[in-house]
Amino acid sequence: MSDYAVTPRSEDFSAWYNEIVVKSDLVDSPERTPVRGCMIIKPYGYEIWEGIRNGLDQRFKATGHQNAYFPLFIPMSFLQKEADHVEGFAPELAVVTHGGGKELEEPYVVRPTSETIIGDAMSRWIQSYRDLPLLLNQWANVVRWEKRTRPFLRTSEFLWQEGHTAHATFDDAQAETMQMLDIYADFAINEAAIPVIKGQKSDQERFAGAHASYTIEAMMGDGKALQAGTSHNLGQNFAKAFDITYTDVNNEPQHCWTTSWGVSTRMIGAIIMAHGDDKGLRLPPRLAPIQAVVVPIWKNESEAAVVLPVAQELAAKLREAGVRLHIDTREGLSPGFKYNDWEMRGVPMRVEVGPKDVQNGTAAIARRDIPGREGKQFVEQSLVVARVLTLLDEVQAGLLQQATAFRDSHLHEVVGDYDRFTEIVRGGEWALTWFSGEAEAEAKIKEDCQAVSRCFPLEQPYAGQSGPCIVTGKPATRMAYFAKAY
Amino acid sequence: MSDYAVTPRSEDFSAWYNEIVVKSDLVDSPERTPVRGCMIIKPYGYEIWEGIRNGLDQRFKATGHQNAYFPLFIPMSFLQKEADHVEGFAPELAVVTHGGGKELEEPYVVRPTSETIIGDAMSRWIQSYRDLPLLLNQWANVVRWEKRTRPFLRTSEFLWQEGHTAHATFDDAQAETMQMLDIYADFAINEAAIPVIKGQKSDQERFAGAHASYTIEAMMGDGKALQAGTSHNLGQNFAKAFDITYTDVNNEPQHCWTTSWGVSTRMIGAIIMAHGDDKGLRLPPRLAPIQAVVVPIWKNESEAAVVLPVAQELAAKLREAGVRLHIDTREGLSPGFKYNDWEMRGVPMRVEVGPKDVQNGTAAIARRDIPGREGKQFVEQSLVVARVLTLLDEVQAGLLQQATAFRDSHLHEVVGDYDRFTEIVRGGEWALTWFSGEAEAEAKIKEDCQAVSRCFPLEQPYAGQSGPCIVTGKPATRMAYFAKAY
Repeated sequence: MSDYAVTPRSEDFSAWYNEIVVKSDLVDSPERTPVRGCMIIKPYGYEIWEGIRNGLDQRFKATGHQNAYFPLFIPMSFLQKEADHVEGFAPELAVVTHGGGKELEEPYVVRPTSETIIGDAMSRWIQSYRDLPLLLNQWANVVRWEKRTRPFLRTSEFLWQEGHTAHATFDDAQAETMQMLDIYADFAINEAAIPVIKGQKSDQERFAGAHASYTIEAMMGDGKALQAGTSHNLGQNFAKAFDITYTDVNNEPQHCWTTSWGVSTRMIGAIIMAHGDDKGLRLPPRLAPIQAVVVPIWKNESEAAVVLPVAQELAAKLREAGVRLHIDTREGLSPGFKYNDWEMRGVPMRVEVGPKDVQNGTAAIARRDIPGREGKQFVEQSLVVARVLTLLDEVQAGLLQQATAFRDSHLHEVVGDYDRFTEIVRGGEWALTWFSGEAEAEAKIKEDCQAVSRCFPLEQPYAGQSGPCIVTGKPATRMAYFAKAY
Repeated sequence: MSDYAVTPRSEDFSAWYNEIVVKSDLVDSPERTPVRGCMIIKPYGYEIWEGIRNGLDQRFKATGHQNAYFPLFIPMSFLQKEADHVEGFAPELAVVTHGGGKELEEPYVVRPTSETIIGDAMSRWIQSYRDLPLLLNQWANVVRWEKRTRPFLRTSEFLWQEGHTAHATFDDAQAETMQMLDIYADFAINEAAIPVIKGQKSDQERFAGAHASYTIEAMMGDGKALQAGTSHNLGQNFAKAFDITYTDVNNEPQHCWTTSWGVSTRMIGAIIMAHGDDKGLRLPPRLAPIQAVVVPIWKNESEAAVVLPVAQELAAKLREAGVRLHIDTREGLSPGFKYNDWEMRGVPMRVEVGPKDVQNGTAAIARRDIPGREGKQFVEQSLVVARVLTLLDEVQAGLLQQATAFRDSHLHEVVGDYDRFTEIVRGGEWALTWFSGEAEAEAKIKEDCQAVSRCFPLEQPYAGQSGPCIVTGKPATRMAYFAKAY
């Protein structure tokens, strides 16, 4: 069994995931990582994160947000100021009790999220309506002590961005919340090629301390859901807990309305599980650290002397055209081994040049998104650059199309039939159904299906109408998706 | 006293620094920051850090380094593997004793630096000489519990990059160490406009666990030295402590040779103190978040109607030309107030447009590096873009030139005369003198001058010669700089 053999995805999705995150060189093996539940993100994995960071950061700045940096440590007393917030995060906290050789008077918490410490700063920075909106974002590491961890999906430390904004009115805060949800969806769909569904969380599933939580929900290759980003309208909960006030145009004191929103290294897990196949990763070209790899093929030195210069010239031209390119000139490895290697790493396109190609003035281009002969084409060398550029767009679109088709074939609308509903959800599919949103109703589904609501999608198929809640039978005004989730 | 009045730099440099870091909006007031010794970096300060980060990251990648990410937490036992290392860092550690509601079996340290946890990973990642060199870098936050803190200069948490590399030979490690020192010096000189001196640290001043430490030393506006970046040849110290080995071409096991190197948010402190004046910051154009500010001047609405469109058009053209530009259209503030404001923030250039300018088709351009009339010129509006672009280069060069002239006027060569030597160093100047490097000699200077050696400069004025050590009188082969330092 070669190094690149993995458990087939269809056989054991979970084992497949655990193997390919390591074999594609995204992270160090979790068993060998010496800090419980923390990740070592290797360069290839970190480059994907850099792509995500750049893509989001650009969108944040274009919409008037500014980056800042707040302390890693948060006084325990801050967390306790918002009752729901501390209740939600208390079980996951890492606590610093000693500093500089002494026991601290008040223990610090390693930030699990920064609403509290940023709320405290906002209360000092905001005086009048002229200071609003205040649009901040922070790129940071956060810590949530997790029992069962998996690279990217659930780790005790992870990297993320957390936006924190303050506004004069509820409507302004709501508009910001939706704007950021739209930005996340735009990024997920157009850069990560993941056809996420925008929606609102149920009261049970909303962020600890939020007035309303919105989410982009993605379907993974095993049918499970993954929350790939969230945007919260915090109402005045944190403004009241931290006394974030402003004087309005009439010189009256008012509490602000705040929001927060975040995307984390979890997005990498989403990309792996939305697109990967039995051969490894399939990375969307816009986020792929290497967009195309040139593999020169030779059997002996005289062939190498003919092939290598042509391959290198092609590589140089592709780089010049702006393609993130690698040329694999490693010796002592067969072309087949190299193909497997780059397929495992999910490189969207491979350009092969052998002695015959040199003779014919051609090269072979193989797409990662279409396996075998169907995804391979022979092209005149002079046309390789143009073709690769076109194909990168096609692969990007192809991955989104495949993921969308897969998603749509696993979405089911159910009205009234609870048995059918539980069958669908238990079977690992998504059910869209009328749902009252009550805690008891959601608890019953959780017990029956080991699943909770993912979201009330913003696009309601029967907007303005109502139907029988799948649990209570009472009229419900919105439909919700239910599915097992990561 | 207006909001922009600060203690003059010449009167009390320290008070001046503490005031302008807050008044120029780089950080939140340390007294109000709720976490002892940690910084809140505000957007304007963080943008300077983004400029530093981009400038360095580009240079790292161009020399083959890759970014990765390692855990925030380090097992206490890891730190103890390298004796000097733990001794150096033990007094400054923050310790996590509880996670997820339970006491941890082994306490974790919040990373003060990552040689140990990265050394452990290297021991797993490196097998053969083919895996070398391994060239890693990490952008991260680190924590060192400090008693007395000042924003950017000494804080319990700070942001930095830490490079960590492994090599097959001592020479390779040494070449890497010097390459990174050169990159730091290039960045400091050409982007931050700080004429740093490259040199080697004495044995007493080298990094805890290093074989040899190199530094870029900068002179601040009060004559004190600031270590603005360091590059360490770690020899085989960490390779032996963490068993980082490779098999060489003869299939023999060998220990690697490793390096580490870092630049932190301290660089922002260096920029403030190297260039700032009584009016506030003076930012080098290459790192300034705002390179030029357009200030339209009007007294009433009819003037505003004439001036604003012209100012806005100029602003648009400057932006289009790639200038990081801000236009200050705030109402109810006098032009003088706005000038003070942008001078405090160190914006390199100001473009003023008033009703008379509109009549004459001109604008006034004022340089931040040259005060008063001398730094001001009137330019035809059609020439503003070209002139601003030229002047940005001139301001960049001007700041470097001013800092270099200041530095050179405070460097003194002393041979043999210990009284003169102590007088110079105690007086806040730099003395370059023959120095044996012995611990006792350095301790005596420390007692007499409250200063230690800054470095043995790489450029020795009498290379190949020797002279009498300033303390022992014994022949010394190198001269060293001594100065009080931050």
